Amino acid sequence: MTTVTVWNEYRHEREHDVVADLYPDGIHATIADALEDRGFETNTATLDEPEHGLTEEVLDDTDVLTWWGHAAHDEVDDEVVDRVQQHVLDGMGLIVLHSAHLSKPFRRLMGTSGSLNWREAAETERVWTIEPGHPIADGIGDYFEVPDAEMYGERFDVPQPDDLVFTSWFEGGEVFRSGCCWTRGNGRVFYFRPGHETYPVYHQEEVRRVLGNACEWAADAADAPGPSVSNRSEPIEDIDSDDERSVH
Amino acid sequence: MTTVTVWNEYRHEREHDVVADLYPDGIHATIADALEDRGFETNTATLDEPEHGLTEEVLDDTDVLTWWGHAAHDEVDDEVVDRVQQHVLDGMGLIVLHSAHLSKPFRRLMGTSGSLNWREAAETERVWTIEPGHPIADGIGDYFEVPDAEMYGERFDVPQPDDLVFTSWFEGGEVFRSGCCWTRGNGRVFYFRPGHETYPVYHQEEVRRVLGNACEWAADAADAPGPSVSNRSEPIEDIDSDDERSVH
Amino acid sequence: MTTVTVWNEYRHEREHDVVADLYPDGIHATIADALEDRGFETNTATLDEPEHGLTEEVLDDTDVLTWWGHAAHDEVDDEVVDRVQQHVLDGMGLIVLHSAHLSKPFRRLMGTSGSLNWREAAETERVWTIEPGHPIADGIGDYFEVPDAEMYGERFDVPQPDDLVFTSWFEGGEVFRSGCCWTRGNGRVFYFRPGHETYPVYHQEEVRRVLGNACEWAADAADAPGPSVSNRSEPIEDIDSDDERSVH
Amino acid sequence: MTTVTVWNEYRHEREHDVVADLYPDGIHATIADALEDRGFETNTATLDEPEHGLTEEVLDDTDVLTWWGHAAHDEVDDEVVDRVQQHVLDGMGLIVLHSAHLSKPFRRLMGTSGSLNWREAAETERVWTIEPGHPIADGIGDYFEVPDAEMYGERFDVPQPDDLVFTSWFEGGEVFRSGCCWTRGNGRVFYFRPGHETYPVYHQEEVRRVLGNACEWAADAADAPGPSVSNRSEPIEDIDSDDERSVH
Repeated sequence: MTTVTVWNEYRHEREHDVVADLYPDGIHATIADALEDRGFETNTATLDEPEHGLTEEVLDDTDVLTWWGHAAHDEVDDEVVDRVQQHVLDGMGLIVLHSAHLSKPFRRLMGTSGSLNWREAAETERVWTIEPGHPIADGIGDYFEVPDAEMYGERFDVPQPDDLVFTSWFEGGEVFRSGCCWTRGNGRVFYFRPGHETYPVYHQEEVRRVLGNACEWAADAADAPGPSVSNRSEPIEDIDSDDERSVH
Repeated sequence: MTTVTVWNEYRHEREHDVVADLYPDGIHATIADALEDRGFETNTATLDEPEHGLTEEVLDDTDVLTWWGHAAHDEVDDEVVDRVQQHVLDGMGLIVLHSAHLSKPFRRLMGTSGSLNWREAAETERVWTIEPGHPIADGIGDYFEVPDAEMYGERFDVPQPDDLVFTSWFEGGEVFRSGCCWTRGNGRVFYFRPGHETYPVYHQEEVRRVLGNACEWAADAADAPGPSVSNRSEPIEDIDSDDERSVH
Repeated sequence: MTTVTVWNEYRHEREHDVVADLYPDGIHATIADALEDRGFETNTATLDEPEHGLTEEVLDDTDVLTWWGHAAHDEVDDEVVDRVQQHVLDGMGLIVLHSAHLSKPFRRLMGTSGSLNWREAAETERVWTIEPGHPIADGIGDYFEVPDAEMYGERFDVPQPDDLVFTSWFEGGEVFRSGCCWTRGNGRVFYFRPGHETYPVYHQEEVRRVLGNACEWAADAADAPGPSVSNRSEPIEDIDSDDERSVH
Repeated sequence: MTTVTVWNEYRHEREHDVVADLYPDGIHATIADALEDRGFETNTATLDEPEHGLTEEVLDDTDVLTWWGHAAHDEVDDEVVDRVQQHVLDGMGLIVLHSAHLSKPFRRLMGTSGSLNWREAAETERVWTIEPGHPIADGIGDYFEVPDAEMYGERFDVPQPDDLVFTSWFEGGEVFRSGCCWTRGNGRVFYFRPGHETYPVYHQEEVRRVLGNACEWAADAADAPGPSVSNRSEPIEDIDSDDERSVH
C-alpha cells in the first residue's frame, strides 16, 4: 500500500480566522482526507513538531511526501531539507503545493529561485490540460476552473519541466505552468499551483482528483538504490587511488 | 567581446610533480590559453585567492565561468556558491569540467548528488557525438578519442540533460553521458567529462575545440533580467497583502 | 551570410480584398522585408511556382526556411515535403508560422496531428515570455500583445517542445504554447503562433523581432553530415551481411 | 486487463534455418509468451495477414502494440501506418523493437530517418541503466549483458528522447541509446534496441523483463480523447468562419 505523508506549515490556520474557517484542522487534514478517500495510507507532519515531524523513520516509511508552506519557509531546518532531498534522490515522490514554490526542499531540488509574479484578487483561474494522456491529467478533461484564485504568473523560475501537464489562464491576463513534473535521482517531483489558504481550493473536486493522481504517479518509481549525497561535503581523499571498479 | 573567467582549485599542480609537469602554470593557464586562441578575453581565478577570486565585480564582468575542482570542493565558501548561482540564474554561462561533477556550484544548480562510478586505469575513452547539429559538437565529427582517461561511468546522478551532446565509451566496459547541457534561470550550463590532472587531456586539440564551442554556446543567452534569489531565506510577510501586479 | 527562403501559400492575398489590403505583395513579401531589415539575405517561394519554388537548388542555398500556409496544405506535393524534411534533417532551419501547424512539412517532422482549438473573434492575445534567456526571446521583455488575434487554444497536439519560449493568453479564456523549439536530425524547428491573414500581425514590431531572432537561432546549427532518408522505402537487403563498420 | 498485440514481419523465420531454430513459431510467439508470463492478454499479427492483421477492430482492442520488422518495411501498407499512428495519438502504446528503427510507424511518429550505424559480429553488448528510477528499468540493476549482439551505434537519428532509460556499450567501441521513451499525442512510444533474428535475445531473462516493464509503462496513459488526424489532407475551408469555440 502506498503511504503518503502530508506536510503542512500549519501556522495560518491557527492565526487567522478566515483560514481556520476553511481548514479547521489544518490544510494537511483536508489534503490527507482527500488522499484517504483515494485509497492511500496517510500520515501528517507539521513545522512545529520535533524535526518538523520528518524523522528518518517517518521518511523511510513514506512513498510520497506532499509539502505546503508559505510564511515560514526559512524556519525549516537545513538538516531536514538534506534528509528530504536524499529521500527524493532515493526514490520518494514529492508533491509541492502552491506557495511551496519558495520552500527549501523545492529550491534545493530545482537549483533555481522558484520566483514568480503574483496578485491576490480572488480572480478566476482556468487550468488547461496540456498533456491529456499523462496519468496526472486522468479524468480532468480539457480544463477546470478555480473560481477564486490567487494569481501566479510567468516567468516562473524553474528548470524546464520534464512534463508540462497543466497551464493556467488567469482573468487578469497572466499564464502559468501550473502542473510540472521533474525527476531528481530516482524520485519524481510534481509542482501543482492551485491552493491558497484563504480560498477553499483543497475542497474542490478536481483539485482533489489531481492530488490523488499525482501521488499515484509519484509513487510509480522503480525500486532502485539511490545515489549517496551523505558525504557530499567531505574531501574526496581517495579519488587518486588506483582502486578499480569491478565491472567484470 | 565575450569574457571567460577560468576557475581552478589549483592544488594538485602545486603538490604533485606529475601534475606540475603537465600543467606547470596550473590547469587554468592551459584552459585560458586554449580559449584565448579561440578569441575570448580570459581571466583566471583560484581557490586560494580572497573570495576564491570570484568577487561580485569579477562575476559582473564574466560572460562564462569555467570550473575545475577535485580535492577541495568543501573549501569553497557557500557565499561564493550563492553568488555563482545567482549569476548563472541572471544569465552567466557555466562550464563544469571533469571532477567538478561534485563541486558545490554544480550540485547547487542541479539539485542532485552528481555522483558517478569511476576507475583510474589510463584506459581509452571514445567520445561519441550524439547531436551532430549542436553548436558544441561543431567540427568534432563522429567521435574523438582520449588515449589515457580516468573512467567515469553511469549512473551519473544528474537531472536529465536538456541536450545530450556527447556520450563516452570506455575500454573497460562503461558508458557515460559526457557532454550535457542544462538551462537554469537565464543561464546555460555545460558539463564536459574529459580532463584529469594526471593526463594531458587539456592539451588535446579536440578537447580545446569543445571548450571553445561550449563557451560560445553558453555566452549565447539573451540579455534579460534574472530572478532574485537574494531574499530566498526571508519570510514572505506581505504575500497576503492586496497589492496587485500592474499588468494593464 | 545567412540566407532565408520565405515560403507562402499566396492564395488569400490574391482572392480576398481584406487580405490584399494588409499584404498587397503577399505575406511573404512582408516577412522577407522584416528579415532583410534584420540583415538576412532573403528569397521568396510560393505554392503556385513549379515545385512550389523549392527545388533542390533553392534548398541547397537556404539556411532557414519560413513556412506560411493555410487553405491549401493538401496541394503541397509529397516530393517537396520529402525534400524539405531531408534538408531539415541535414541542418536547415524551419520556422513554421501560425496556420502552418497543419502544414505537411510540420506534421511530417512532428509525427503528430498538429491539431488545436481555434476561434476567430479579433480578441486580445498576450504573448508571455517563458524562457527570458532564450535567444528567440531577446529584446521581448515579459510579454507583448497582439490587439486583434485569431485564438488558438490547447490542446495543441505536438511532441513536447525541447524549449518552450512563449505561451499566449487569450481574452476569451484559453492558453497556447505559442513559441516552441524542436531539433530534428541536425536541423532546428520553431513554431510561432501569431500571424493571421486578416490582421496586420506581420507588420507588428515585436513579431518582426521574434521572426529575426528565430531565424538567427535556427541558423545556428553546427555544419555536420545529415542522415540519409532517401532510401527509406527500400528493402534493407544487405543488413544480414557480415560487413563491418570501420571504426578503427 | 491490458491487451498487447505482438506484431512481426515473420519472414526470416520461414526462410532461414538459423532463425527458425531459434524462433520456431516466429519471434512474435516468443515475445507473446514472455508477455503472457507477465500477465498480459496477448494477440499476434503478422505482415502477410490481410491488413497485416491490424484492422481497426484489432487496434481498438489493443492497449499496447509491439513491432518487429526488418527486411520488408516497405511492404507495410501506408493505410495501416496511418491507422497505427492514429491509435498511438489516441493513447495506444507502441514498443518498437531492434531493426524496427527503420519501420514506417516509427519513422512516421518520430519525423526523422531513424538511421544508425551497425555491424554484425556477434560481439558483447552491455546495456547500462541510465535512469534506475524509471519503471522500465525496474529489476534490471546497473546493467545486463547480451553475449552475442548485432552492434547498433550512434548517431541514432531520432528526436531527443523524453526519457533515456538505457545506453549500450559495445565491445567494438560504440555506444547507443538503446532504451528511449517518447510521447506522441496521448500515446507512449518505447524503442528497445536488443533483439536480432539470428541470436536468442528474446529468450534472455533481462530482455523479457524489460519488454514486460515497457508494456506496463506504455499502457499507463490516461484515457482521454485523442486528436483527429483523419481530415489532415483536407482543405481547411471554414477556418475563416466566425464560429466560436464554446468555452463557457
